[in-house]
Amino acid sequence: MVSEFSITRTVEFAETDMAGIMHFSNYFRWMESCETAFIRSLGLPLTAFAAPGAVGWPRVNAKCDFRAPLRFGDTVEVRVYVKEIRTRAISFVYQFRKLTKGKLEPDVLARGELTIVCVTTDAKGKMVATPIPADYRAKLRMAPKSAWQDED
Amino acid sequence: MVSEFSITRTVEFAETDMAGIMHFSNYFRWMESCETAFIRSLGLPLTAFAAPGAVGWPRVNAKCDFRAPLRFGDTVEVRVYVKEIRTRAISFVYQFRKLTKGKLEPDVLARGELTIVCVTTDAKGKMVATPIPADYRAKLRMAPKSAWQDED
Amino acid sequence: MVSEFSITRTVEFAETDMAGIMHFSNYFRWMESCETAFIRSLGLPLTAFAAPGAVGWPRVNAKCDFRAPLRFGDTVEVRVYVKEIRTRAISFVYQFRKLTKGKLEPDVLARGELTIVCVTTDAKGKMVATPIPADYRAKLRMAPKSAWQDED
Amino acid sequence: MVSEFSITRTVEFAETDMAGIMHFSNYFRWMESCETAFIRSLGLPLTAFAAPGAVGWPRVNAKCDFRAPLRFGDTVEVRVYVKEIRTRAISFVYQFRKLTKGKLEPDVLARGELTIVCVTTDAKGKMVATPIPADYRAKLRMAPKSAWQDED
Repeated sequence: MVSEFSITRTVEFAETDMAGIMHFSNYFRWMESCETAFIRSLGLPLTAFAAPGAVGWPRVNAKCDFRAPLRFGDTVEVRVYVKEIRTRAISFVYQFRKLTKGKLEPDVLARGELTIVCVTTDAKGKMVATPIPADYRAKLRMAPKSAWQDED
Repeated sequence: MVSEFSITRTVEFAETDMAGIMHFSNYFRWMESCETAFIRSLGLPLTAFAAPGAVGWPRVNAKCDFRAPLRFGDTVEVRVYVKEIRTRAISFVYQFRKLTKGKLEPDVLARGELTIVCVTTDAKGKMVATPIPADYRAKLRMAPKSAWQDED
Repeated sequence: MVSEFSITRTVEFAETDMAGIMHFSNYFRWMESCETAFIRSLGLPLTAFAAPGAVGWPRVNAKCDFRAPLRFGDTVEVRVYVKEIRTRAISFVYQFRKLTKGKLEPDVLARGELTIVCVTTDAKGKMVATPIPADYRAKLRMAPKSAWQDED
Repeated sequence: MVSEFSITRTVEFAETDMAGIMHFSNYFRWMESCETAFIRSLGLPLTAFAAPGAVGWPRVNAKCDFRAPLRFGDTVEVRVYVKEIRTRAISFVYQFRKLTKGKLEPDVLARGELTIVCVTTDAKGKMVATPIPADYRAKLRMAPKSAWQDED
């Protein structure tokens, strides 16, 4: 059972805006990418409930604090922690830290959260919340609060 | 002095994802677009602190609750309310509602918030928070809580 | 039968990059948005072949010449011309011109083309090219070469 | 002197659209990312002409043929070839091929080209084409036509 995971990404030109920094909407895409890589690393299925009976994971809440900007070419660790597992929903906490010459800097430059809900699609194509499948429960574990909490 | 504003947008094909709904990161782009149109409607300058002495408005916090999905072709009102004006920061609340045959539906399908900070750039190119300019203060007014608060 | 159409758009902050201009990938999104609005204006169905028997229109070729940059806040006319209608494919030409105080400037700042193919999905979910439906043929007409051709 | 380079990428959820495939605009972003990684691998400076005297590389032409779709989770090699070096411009050819269990598949699923121009910014902030710097010329070499040409 695993409670955290990380990916490393570099800020791309298309992710910057005219202020010369990474556009804030891209942090949310990076969080989702980290979550995807995490779920994939556990051998869990990743679908978008296209197949009958398949589950999907729409986001019901997303938030992020931006403490210092990221710039073109910055290499960044995005680390995800399982904050909470409920019957039908999971919350993840994300921390963004710069990697300078391969060394992780101590400052958390951004801190986000995503809450996702497990859904299936009913006969009319409407999303309906459903209990988290057993294989997800068997592999994911909540991280201790001390792991992801910070003072700010 | 104005405390709210709205734009109307239609969900584009490129904004959908394989789940058939608008990708959640795009709600944040729509909020920013609504803010831009609001500021522009007031005749206030919109810059990205490229010019010496100009101010910029990076986001320090962004969040959104997603209550029901938006789909390709949906026409949506994005309404912004000035939630709070502080010395160096402004918070906006956003509500997303569908327009069906030109009529606004009552349900708020998504509800977001952005907090932006007024900054200038110091000699080294670092962002430094600075008091909100007088022209912004003269034109923006906080909306009453009753305008933007809801029960959910 | 109609052979051209246009939309007006304003360059958004999220569409700029650190060079201070609209990122080139967004021109392709704008072309698609213009095409969508065009098809919708004709009352033709717009689907993504999710429904059985429905057709979709993946792009098989996309290109664009960028002659002068677009900047944050620029208001732009995107005009689409039907260049060619074949059995299973349609080619569109797009011209981007700035609107200054509501007046269209003569210079074409960017010129693009998209070729789309009409497809259905076979039993395995694979896309298969199929003849363009009669309702599309009945409403779309090729524009004369003189309408969209320029010297550059 | 180097004439080709490649990166490996996985299609992310946010890069798909409601047709269940990677949105075509993202191929252009991937090409640019591959170019960036290529230039960086050569130790050449990558700027956006913010600094006085610095050069930037806006695109003047972009095109892509899409032969078969990419789907969520597909791992893809993007390979760039230096097609042509002129006085002020460089053209790159890009090939997209799937990696299945680490093995490169023979089919080119998409084939693109970008032509970029070397510019500086004049006193008014306008871009002006300028000869390619010597350090770029010293490190980049044109690839033989046989390397990037295909029959289609």
